[in-house]
Amino acid sequence: MEEIREIIEARYDRLAAGDVPGMLAFYAPKVVQFNLAPPLGGWTDGHDPAPLAGWLATFAAPPRRTVTQLEITASGDAAFATSLDSMTAIPKGSDSPFTMWHRMTLGLSRDDGRWLIVHEHASVPFYMDGSFRAAVDLKP
Amino acid sequence: MEEIREIIEARYDRLAAGDVPGMLAFYAPKVVQFNLAPPLGGWTDGHDPAPLAGWLATFAAPPRRTVTQLEITASGDAAFATSLDSMTAIPKGSDSPFTMWHRMTLGLSRDDGRWLIVHEHASVPFYMDGSFRAAVDLKP
Repeated sequence: MEEIREIIEARYDRLAAGDVPGMLAFYAPKVVQFNLAPPLGGWTDGHDPAPLAGWLATFAAPPRRTVTQLEITASGDAAFATSLDSMTAIPKGSDSPFTMWHRMTLGLSRDDGRWLIVHEHASVPFYMDGSFRAAVDLKP
Repeated sequence: MEEIREIIEARYDRLAAGDVPGMLAFYAPKVVQFNLAPPLGGWTDGHDPAPLAGWLATFAAPPRRTVTQLEITASGDAAFATSLDSMTAIPKGSDSPFTMWHRMTLGLSRDDGRWLIVHEHASVPFYMDGSFRAAVDLKP
């Protein structure tokens, strides 16, 4: 459990440092990715630096993310973790930061004694008032 | 794995039959719920029939859901499953059905030899084109 908690925190530390290889080292070679942005998702190359580097390039500085309400279930070589995470960032061309809260579920698998992220599901809900607006303004 | 696959399919069969207690029997007493609709989510009473019954009442008939691209990781007494699911339903007051595809992650825990759902995360991504529209029109 403690090892998994450290991985979850450490990957956001690596992100805040803009360290793409350091961040990807926590992921398995194949990851089922369900991202905040389209497409729906599916299997991706967990070690391809291009998507993460491209995403980082849209910000004035690497985003800072925090993990709250973390719950970890682990047994044998399988684990999953749920949390409500915040992301604070300044988009390039903007001079003010935004903060967005989202849900995060991670699936981990232990391979050769080492836990790796094999699934990541980040999302916000959407308003069912007919507007179909993404609920990017919620707080825990 | 086969037992978990059966649970995942069977809960949608119970839903299609409008069988609220049958559906809830697959869930643990405490579930971390991240739903399609707000709020962000957190611990909920997995056996409270009111939310599911209230949701069903908004449709002309119980929604039908299908599971595709199911991937299950299980070890010891922990498991997680990812899939792209469709939901087809007719809202009350409408005469035509809609179909929406969404991502689904389930976390399961085995208690007394029986697998129960302890976490459910359903979502669609949103368009990052400035519109913040929920992407309810995607297909796998």
